[in-house]
Amino acid sequence: MNWKPIRQSEMTLQQQIVTWITEHIERGDWVAGTKLPTQRQLAMQFGVNRSTVQQALEELKATGILEAKVGSGIYVAHNSWHSLITQTQPNWQTYIDTSLHKPNYHTIQLINEYEQRDDVIRLGTGELAPSLLPTAEIEASLKELSLQPKALGYSSPQGSDRLREAICEYVKKRGIHANPQNVCIVSGALQALQLIAVGLLEQGSIVFQEQTSYLNSVHPFQSVGMQMMAIHRDAQLAQTLAEKKRKRQAVFYAVPTLNNPTGVVWTALEKKQLYEACKQSRIPIIEDDVYHELLFEAATPPIKSMDDSGQVLYIGSVSKTLSPGLRIGWLIGPTTVIERLADIKMQTDYGSSAISQEIVLHWLQSGKYEKHIVSLRQKLQQRADYVETILQEKFCDIADWYKPKGGFYIWLKFHEPIVDKELFIKLLQRQVLINPGYIYNPQDTQHIRLSYAYATYEELETGLKNLFEIVKKDT
Amino acid sequence: MNWKPIRQSEMTLQQQIVTWITEHIERGDWVAGTKLPTQRQLAMQFGVNRSTVQQALEELKATGILEAKVGSGIYVAHNSWHSLITQTQPNWQTYIDTSLHKPNYHTIQLINEYEQRDDVIRLGTGELAPSLLPTAEIEASLKELSLQPKALGYSSPQGSDRLREAICEYVKKRGIHANPQNVCIVSGALQALQLIAVGLLEQGSIVFQEQTSYLNSVHPFQSVGMQMMAIHRDAQLAQTLAEKKRKRQAVFYAVPTLNNPTGVVWTALEKKQLYEACKQSRIPIIEDDVYHELLFEAATPPIKSMDDSGQVLYIGSVSKTLSPGLRIGWLIGPTTVIERLADIKMQTDYGSSAISQEIVLHWLQSGKYEKHIVSLRQKLQQRADYVETILQEKFCDIADWYKPKGGFYIWLKFHEPIVDKELFIKLLQRQVLINPGYIYNPQDTQHIRLSYAYATYEELETGLKNLFEIVKKDT
Repeated sequence: MNWKPIRQSEMTLQQQIVTWITEHIERGDWVAGTKLPTQRQLAMQFGVNRSTVQQALEELKATGILEAKVGSGIYVAHNSWHSLITQTQPNWQTYIDTSLHKPNYHTIQLINEYEQRDDVIRLGTGELAPSLLPTAEIEASLKELSLQPKALGYSSPQGSDRLREAICEYVKKRGIHANPQNVCIVSGALQALQLIAVGLLEQGSIVFQEQTSYLNSVHPFQSVGMQMMAIHRDAQLAQTLAEKKRKRQAVFYAVPTLNNPTGVVWTALEKKQLYEACKQSRIPIIEDDVYHELLFEAATPPIKSMDDSGQVLYIGSVSKTLSPGLRIGWLIGPTTVIERLADIKMQTDYGSSAISQEIVLHWLQSGKYEKHIVSLRQKLQQRADYVETILQEKFCDIADWYKPKGGFYIWLKFHEPIVDKELFIKLLQRQVLINPGYIYNPQDTQHIRLSYAYATYEELETGLKNLFEIVKKDT
Repeated sequence: MNWKPIRQSEMTLQQQIVTWITEHIERGDWVAGTKLPTQRQLAMQFGVNRSTVQQALEELKATGILEAKVGSGIYVAHNSWHSLITQTQPNWQTYIDTSLHKPNYHTIQLINEYEQRDDVIRLGTGELAPSLLPTAEIEASLKELSLQPKALGYSSPQGSDRLREAICEYVKKRGIHANPQNVCIVSGALQALQLIAVGLLEQGSIVFQEQTSYLNSVHPFQSVGMQMMAIHRDAQLAQTLAEKKRKRQAVFYAVPTLNNPTGVVWTALEKKQLYEACKQSRIPIIEDDVYHELLFEAATPPIKSMDDSGQVLYIGSVSKTLSPGLRIGWLIGPTTVIERLADIKMQTDYGSSAISQEIVLHWLQSGKYEKHIVSLRQKLQQRADYVETILQEKFCDIADWYKPKGGFYIWLKFHEPIVDKELFIKLLQRQVLINPGYIYNPQDTQHIRLSYAYATYEELETGLKNLFEIVKKDT
């Protein structure tokens, strides 16, 4: 939306806006049922007063092109005047409504939208702050890259050979013994889950997970018809799994090291127990290990390191440590599975960015990656301590939390069940964005995922002050 | 597979190979039913004689771990000894066989596999030769990039704002008037099709296309349950579409400029006719325009430029012109549709590589892109002329073709129906890789897609000589 009305025009600003919106609708760019941006947003985009926008919208409502829905906003109308125009347009909204893939939850759409704005304090973001990204170093490393012409062509199905070799070397330190043919390069961990969903599971398969799970906030499995099932990891685990699985196909999704969003770290024994329980019922495990480098203390080996039967699909990534913008992760598993998923990746996007792969290779091989992580961990630890100090000062009487063991998050639990969409919206009105617990567990009304990784120190203080005030008012 | 037997070991090379393969199978890395690489490939990988490999495999077959299938190769056996081991392994092969997404056709898997080998002449490849890629210039442009920390974070749903603005500017020359909110950056054109398949169409929707179509060689729509329907574009087109569509949802997939694989270029009138016919039945059009920059003569405007009702989804890409390894394309359409597809992209891979986006932005803005294309077109024209000379000399009596108008391909039509999998395999045995017509139209046994874009001049000559010899022998 880079159009702005012209001040020197013979038409008034209001007229110009009316014409522009009308044309937009006639062209089929905004179809019937489209929600318009808020008046405030439009005013900003057009570079005019809010009252000018308001008058233009009133005029359009009067002619029936737009309609207001109380408490929800202004929409392109479904009226007869408009349907005259749209008789020749495809019914885009119907297409969207009946299509296969679920939309993101509204809260998550709002999060994705508001995360783009510079005037918002992001208290929940699962991403390193710009100041923690080694931007200058990545820029410098671009100058050191020497590209082979072949690297700029289409990739081999499993990704760059050299990068896969480097990843095998890298995961050795985690006790994982893999060969390059056990590795598929993916565009981030989420794509690995997507490939598993369509490439390994039949419709109606069960995905076991913990009650509170990252998978509830994205839905690679739900969107293709898998059934999610929350599981308590207790002494009866093996039996429970067998009973619930019955004759169906199943996988277990686990984030044993620095769980997203809870921050929980499993002991070696807990990992062993899950592995054995799944092995009994021959249930494959998806081990999501994208946060392990960010543990403040030494990490215990992943489940994959215990895997003597090709049962664990292991996911790693540089998105949480180096740069999400590179979109590089990896999936490690039996050759048979990896070749299958690589075949689907070829049908999906023909491979991941060659340049991104070269950058990650360079960072792994040069030792820059591990050096960067050492300093990153220290900075995250400082941020965690800072947020804890604020929490200690202000939140002791209304919430509980565990001291974070690493990563980005504190899983803040309020004593009262106050975390609902209303709270989310109220904070948004104060330009504070949180990740409410209910996006990870629909039944949860007590938690928020607090991230000390993204906002500045100042923003963290202001954001938490706002959170405290709003919560206090409510309780 | 970076393991090699050790020559100084106390074990013989054969013993070491037997042990290594057995361990591989016990670990579940090669599951029952896995096909082993050929003896030749194994010998190369292990750095031993083929006879050593053969003896090791014989030993493993004797113990029942491996089994040979006549004319097909050697597989990990499904026998009782092996099932003892695999009782605790997940049934990966069953998982794969029952999962949602179709595998690539076997011929395409072979193409993907053999395209990785340096000793193969690629006569059909849909990709620029390494020597045609501006590798040095891209490497140089990396040194000119200045990165913003925000660019290295997660992308906004539709992709980089600056890149989207640059693309709007770029497509203006094609007569397309779009705003950044009409644009979604994708990881290549194939991903755009994938997003449309799951984000806009209900199960059982119809995808109209031409008889011979790129979509038959990948299958973004087929894999999620859409019905493909071949259509002749004749005077009754509007009526045919209406009859076949009935009450179902439908889209029309078209490559009006330099069709893949046929190379056909539609006239402005043909484009207009398709647009009007689809408009009558309110059928959206997917216009795949990734080859237009490679027309040897001036291009006529795309269908999208006629679109006054938001009916055309337009796809562009730099994969055919600058570098497929960047994985950057774009999708242009009504805001409503673009926002929906961007939302799904966020659920799929959280956006395309930020660095790749920066590179494409730099190339578009600096004018490097258009300059590069001018010189690329000349080189492609020379290659086309060269291949035509060979065809004129050798193939006049056995095949027909049209002089290419641009792009990569000559759609070579043999007089006899000789293009089958046998021909494909025979040529592969001579290390010549072709793209047979049947991957684009299962009924086609007369065409091959000849590409003058990839192989070297010398390889083109040798490859065509081999093709000629094999065909001559058969007829």
